[in-house]
Amino acid sequence: MFVLVNLKAYPCDPVAVAEAAASVETEKADVAIAPQAAHISDVAETGVETWAQHVSPVEHGSHTGSTLAEAVVDAGAEGTLLNHSENRLKLADIDGSLDAADRTGLGTCLCANNPDQIAAAAALGPDSVAVEPPELIGTGTPVSKADPDIVRDAVEAAEEVDPSVDVYCGAGISTGEDVVAAQELGADGVLLASGVAKADDPAAALEDLVEPL
Amino acid sequence: MFVLVNLKAYPCDPVAVAEAAASVETEKADVAIAPQAAHISDVAETGVETWAQHVSPVEHGSHTGSTLAEAVVDAGAEGTLLNHSENRLKLADIDGSLDAADRTGLGTCLCANNPDQIAAAAALGPDSVAVEPPELIGTGTPVSKADPDIVRDAVEAAEEVDPSVDVYCGAGISTGEDVVAAQELGADGVLLASGVAKADDPAAALEDLVEPL
Amino acid sequence: MFVLVNLKAYPCDPVAVAEAAASVETEKADVAIAPQAAHISDVAETGVETWAQHVSPVEHGSHTGSTLAEAVVDAGAEGTLLNHSENRLKLADIDGSLDAADRTGLGTCLCANNPDQIAAAAALGPDSVAVEPPELIGTGTPVSKADPDIVRDAVEAAEEVDPSVDVYCGAGISTGEDVVAAQELGADGVLLASGVAKADDPAAALEDLVEPL
Amino acid sequence: MFVLVNLKAYPCDPVAVAEAAASVETEKADVAIAPQAAHISDVAETGVETWAQHVSPVEHGSHTGSTLAEAVVDAGAEGTLLNHSENRLKLADIDGSLDAADRTGLGTCLCANNPDQIAAAAALGPDSVAVEPPELIGTGTPVSKADPDIVRDAVEAAEEVDPSVDVYCGAGISTGEDVVAAQELGADGVLLASGVAKADDPAAALEDLVEPL
Repeated sequence: MFVLVNLKAYPCDPVAVAEAAASVETEKADVAIAPQAAHISDVAETGVETWAQHVSPVEHGSHTGSTLAEAVVDAGAEGTLLNHSENRLKLADIDGSLDAADRTGLGTCLCANNPDQIAAAAALGPDSVAVEPPELIGTGTPVSKADPDIVRDAVEAAEEVDPSVDVYCGAGISTGEDVVAAQELGADGVLLASGVAKADDPAAALEDLVEPL
Repeated sequence: MFVLVNLKAYPCDPVAVAEAAASVETEKADVAIAPQAAHISDVAETGVETWAQHVSPVEHGSHTGSTLAEAVVDAGAEGTLLNHSENRLKLADIDGSLDAADRTGLGTCLCANNPDQIAAAAALGPDSVAVEPPELIGTGTPVSKADPDIVRDAVEAAEEVDPSVDVYCGAGISTGEDVVAAQELGADGVLLASGVAKADDPAAALEDLVEPL
Repeated sequence: MFVLVNLKAYPCDPVAVAEAAASVETEKADVAIAPQAAHISDVAETGVETWAQHVSPVEHGSHTGSTLAEAVVDAGAEGTLLNHSENRLKLADIDGSLDAADRTGLGTCLCANNPDQIAAAAALGPDSVAVEPPELIGTGTPVSKADPDIVRDAVEAAEEVDPSVDVYCGAGISTGEDVVAAQELGADGVLLASGVAKADDPAAALEDLVEPL
Repeated sequence: MFVLVNLKAYPCDPVAVAEAAASVETEKADVAIAPQAAHISDVAETGVETWAQHVSPVEHGSHTGSTLAEAVVDAGAEGTLLNHSENRLKLADIDGSLDAADRTGLGTCLCANNPDQIAAAAALGPDSVAVEPPELIGTGTPVSKADPDIVRDAVEAAEEVDPSVDVYCGAGISTGEDVVAAQELGADGVLLASGVAKADDPAAALEDLVEPL
């Protein structure tokens, strides 16, 4: 399982969370951290797999305030989230940001709300898609209890369009039991945020998450 | 063939163009007009099939400045463009606008730039998609000369995802020859704009367009 | 006092509300209605002063899905809201939309959140500004009880920048008492929405609003 | 004079430009560098004054893909551009981003197109405003030849609203002569981009710029 910890704009110490992630010893999960762009180089220096939270659909040029794929790669990023529910993008810009990621070798996880959007997302050729059922975002409700079908349907929708696209569960994950439930529903990974980023002991929180795998 | 004349924000008389369109007598083409939202009721009163240029991804509620699907239907619209290259939408909002169109019975034509985006668009379940090769928009270059493969590939991409979705050619159409070329490349319709909207004699321009069919 | 009833995307009959507004007989208030763009011509035909909810910062041209100032004027609009809290605009686009309104003779009411933004708004040269304290929007809390200073400060901020700009109270108005309170705080008008648009008897609701003036 | 070199998304080596800027020895100008967010920490380590190209109007929280003011400060930024012509912001978001900068001690330079917008910008309380006449952006035309009045009018407009706000010339600067012209028109600083960022010898380019002061 791939476990991506999204630090959002949380008031956490990104290096401390990164060190906790780097210390997790398991062969059953790959843990990565997605900090603010300005924190990527510090996080990457810990040795943990580092992701951007977003890259802009631009090439080198006059794009003040953009997040250039080349710049996040320079800083140490290996992948990027795109179209997160807190950062929805235009369809044409998703296509452009995927091009930017391809150009620079960044892995991509393209987020979407529901199985129809997952099929559309998969058709654009990302490495992975993440289904974020809006009714689960930030609620703490585990996906296995709220609406397991949405994950199953997302896995099926992506599979039909392009079987090489991985599917992650992008909401409703706070415990190891939730990670196992996501895996049993067919997900290849999970996106997490506050459960780890805001934990008093991020290393312990991560151990608990991957332990039941 | 479906022939949709998009009046954009052109300085034309929308009712005169609508009457011209209503007067075209052919069994080989259905002509529709997409005026500004504020002109829909006047255009619809001519009897021509009337489309909106956009509807917002909202339901009834507190959405000042939106273009509510129910309002354009009230005014006489039967269909709507979505995600036109001059009005690109977020993926989640395209999904919401398609829901609004379904809810109110509007036909939908979802625009996109290239075959990959056409596949993504088709996966969202619109009635039709329109491929708008950016290199043809507003150039007057006929699609049959510039890049015929992009139309062929768009038709194929949509077909693979959902064979019930029609495919229109959304740029590079100014003459009857271009309409025929689009048809031969597999398109079920065309989007036009200035060629008719800015013509001195819109009726003659439309006759010329559908005559070779 | 100017009383602008914003119909937003509410499920009301815009013509019925317009007729109710047209029937209000008072010399103490001017009542205007801001419907969906597609409803402007029907509303204007009742004889009531009709406003757009928004106009785009564009001139005639290739702007699919825009709300062209010329089109809403054609349909009968005499003024337009801009930058409503449900339709926030870029600073440069506010400037462009004000230009569009000037070009076509539309009156303008530019909305903003707080006294600082009201000063900025007034500097752009609209006919009027409306202060919409976010904490009052849609709450039913009367402005006179919640935070009277924000209206007083807005009036003062606009006055300092440009005394010719009218100031409206854009939230927290549901009763005639609220209208009087706004007037006493220095406002030249009020923006209303659900209190009239969703009333069983819009004419009675409007009578109640202007009666205490 | 304040000389801010905006690296945009240019294919330059940000550390090399920063070192060049740090090496400029003059008491007549303060030179700062605005790199991509992901490059801020590397640039700041050179000792040069470092600026962000943008910060988001958010506080700590669930804001994936934002540019959090606290994060750019952590990385070493001392100021931020806002509302650059390549990154236009909503009026309410400008206000929010200024709040974020105040909260974290970042200096602010708020860009705008013309004297009216400069007055509006100054009313929001930034440390400085930059006038970017659209007709000069990226043209290489020196401001002193193209339209000197726009700088003079911007200085006057800001002065009237708030004399404590500095005014920078945000376009049309490529030579030391242009910097002197801007200063003579009343500007307190200049924004530059390609002239330095793309120079073969950035240190020499900067020396040439500040030499005539």
